[in-house]
Amino acid sequence: MSSSQINPPPRLLMGPGPINADPRVLRAMSAQLVGQYDPAMTGYMNEVMELYRGVFKTSNEATFLVDGTSRAGIEAALISLIEPGAKVLVPIFGRFGHLLKEIAVRAGAEVAVREKTWGQVFTPEEIEQAIIEERPALLALVQGDTSTTMNQPLEDIGEICQRHGVLFYTDVTASLAGNEFSADEWKIDAVTAGLQKCLGGPSGSAPISLSDRAVDAIRSRRHVEAGIADGTAGRGTRIASNYFDLAMIMDYWAPQRLNHHTEATSMLYGARECARLLLDEGLDAAVARHELHGRAMLAGVQGLGLEVFGDITHKMNNVVAVDIPAGVDGDAVRSAMLADYGIEIGTSFGPLHGKVWRIGTMGYNARKDAVMITLAALEQVLRAGGAEVRPGGGTGAAAEIYQDHAGSQAQQPGEVPA
Amino acid sequence: MSSSQINPPPRLLMGPGPINADPRVLRAMSAQLVGQYDPAMTGYMNEVMELYRGVFKTSNEATFLVDGTSRAGIEAALISLIEPGAKVLVPIFGRFGHLLKEIAVRAGAEVAVREKTWGQVFTPEEIEQAIIEERPALLALVQGDTSTTMNQPLEDIGEICQRHGVLFYTDVTASLAGNEFSADEWKIDAVTAGLQKCLGGPSGSAPISLSDRAVDAIRSRRHVEAGIADGTAGRGTRIASNYFDLAMIMDYWAPQRLNHHTEATSMLYGARECARLLLDEGLDAAVARHELHGRAMLAGVQGLGLEVFGDITHKMNNVVAVDIPAGVDGDAVRSAMLADYGIEIGTSFGPLHGKVWRIGTMGYNARKDAVMITLAALEQVLRAGGAEVRPGGGTGAAAEIYQDHAGSQAQQPGEVPA
Repeated sequence: MSSSQINPPPRLLMGPGPINADPRVLRAMSAQLVGQYDPAMTGYMNEVMELYRGVFKTSNEATFLVDGTSRAGIEAALISLIEPGAKVLVPIFGRFGHLLKEIAVRAGAEVAVREKTWGQVFTPEEIEQAIIEERPALLALVQGDTSTTMNQPLEDIGEICQRHGVLFYTDVTASLAGNEFSADEWKIDAVTAGLQKCLGGPSGSAPISLSDRAVDAIRSRRHVEAGIADGTAGRGTRIASNYFDLAMIMDYWAPQRLNHHTEATSMLYGARECARLLLDEGLDAAVARHELHGRAMLAGVQGLGLEVFGDITHKMNNVVAVDIPAGVDGDAVRSAMLADYGIEIGTSFGPLHGKVWRIGTMGYNARKDAVMITLAALEQVLRAGGAEVRPGGGTGAAAEIYQDHAGSQAQQPGEVPA
Repeated sequence: MSSSQINPPPRLLMGPGPINADPRVLRAMSAQLVGQYDPAMTGYMNEVMELYRGVFKTSNEATFLVDGTSRAGIEAALISLIEPGAKVLVPIFGRFGHLLKEIAVRAGAEVAVREKTWGQVFTPEEIEQAIIEERPALLALVQGDTSTTMNQPLEDIGEICQRHGVLFYTDVTASLAGNEFSADEWKIDAVTAGLQKCLGGPSGSAPISLSDRAVDAIRSRRHVEAGIADGTAGRGTRIASNYFDLAMIMDYWAPQRLNHHTEATSMLYGARECARLLLDEGLDAAVARHELHGRAMLAGVQGLGLEVFGDITHKMNNVVAVDIPAGVDGDAVRSAMLADYGIEIGTSFGPLHGKVWRIGTMGYNARKDAVMITLAALEQVLRAGGAEVRPGGGTGAAAEIYQDHAGSQAQQPGEVPA
């Protein structure tokens, strides 16, 4: 075969993620490598730990990266936290709840689930009731589930878990940096993420943070590899994965630097830059930016005359699910958006397959021009596809949001940068 | 904390890997992202499959990437191939044999091992005898083990495995592209690698190839995620990992593109460029290049008066283990090489810890100038550290190798490019 130099077509990625990486992240990733134990490298690792403490709003010492996609972070957390046979409660409100369940099952857990109709979230009372009924060792709960666009409120759940002696894991891949999150304040024991949503990086590195309670649970199962054994005897039920053994990965990120994998240096450079950009902007400012552009996109699609799926009071800031109008070929619209306008919007899974498009405004693409151009293109494509749309209704409604915002900014200068 | 723009110190990485990435690979990785199901992206995925068929010398349809470091590839292969309770034979001749054993144990295998003193390899007869004694379902064997620098001959092992009905897995992370490898000719059922050695890329993506026999074994355990289930019932003992479930990952890389993880796009761009550069050079030419520069480095360290560890007739082309002379502080030498000359050479693990340095000549750094500058610096650092070294003995011996090679090239033009 012949293959040529990489030259991807220019795309504006307005789906549920991955989205366009911030060019500054890609530039950081093009830096040359250093050795695994080079003082420069271990220095970068320590910086990454501190940066992600800021991102997760935590003082957890055990804050680092798992080398793989966001799904790798989920599996590392669950397989390391779950003793085979332990009870795990998974409240499911979308595809990624099913994923947590399936990973927990493979980790040997006895899994109890509660399910919400797609488009809804759980109340704290429902979760507490389920905890009382199931007496799990671990609660595993997604924050933002892109399959439904819902954002599960978490702020009261950690306190409930602590009261019942339950460890609390959450996956914030889709929501982090676009929606409020506060690991320590919300008493979260384990949290994992990815770079490819609101953090503005490529998939392939999974930031993770673990509370002392979680670390204790994991360290009670620590075993050192035979080839580099230090004489410490293994304890507890051995974690079923070597690659995802967080006890070993923590030893690698700790001052003893006990060899595990070879750190994915370029991805670490990228993860570092994602966090740096986010903390430079300010976490609250980043969330406000996602709220603004998400609100503009929501107003825009409604302004076009489209209906929106789900309980939008609990919608993530960074993605909206739009009902595909009757008589419109959803895949043909997506294809035309991509082929004719270079804009990607998302399809859907499971019960929503063929029923909604998912349109994201996240990370580098949570910007006014990205929102406006997407709405302008969508209007044209829908009209060409035979749908009734209000001429200028999308961009007009979004523009109003931006004008109102600029007005409120003028009154309260500097509060929420656009 | 304050952190600044990434700016790693310039290093010449002459350890056992990671080594400096080829700048062309880093440039490829700086390309902007496209969506997960963009025709451009699925086109790149198909190209990657075809490129790595070339790299592994195979016609295996199931040739793709696992999103993680080389260790992720190992674990994906073993956890997907090993049914819990199955017998696995691991001949161990260094640290990475221990790693295969430990991953196989965590995958629930009954593991039988044979061990060689570090610095030796197995004969085919020894492996056949062990197969007869143990009757394993799977043989798991490292090709090049950087911990000892040994290169296990594999060419006769596949035929033995087929004769005894044993699946044959090998890890070629350290050896691929620097030493001969031929998946189909050698009848290998599963092989995994990484980018950070002779392929000249960063750690973080693990190329893999599976024979039809291996694919059948894995597909017999296929289960589809509940959130995206297609009505197909699961079969066999479910693979204990979701992330490393090769049955699911194959469905993602196959025309049906069934969603699994979000492909690590930047790493895929990098992996693609590694393979492109290698196939442009020609696999045989790349191996010859590693042989030449490895031979020059070997002659060079011997020319300095240093002793070399292990059975060097079975040494990998791309790395040499050098005995630390009596009275010399090995870590101080490595520190001075790094701090004063910007050159990294490697330390060692396990029984060789504190006894040898490991010096690599691999990938982008399998070059004459890299060899010469390393030998020149090593002479200075050893002398300053109190060792007796022959002035000019290292660079002189290496230069002789290059002169002889240039002479033989002049006689047989174009045979082995320097």
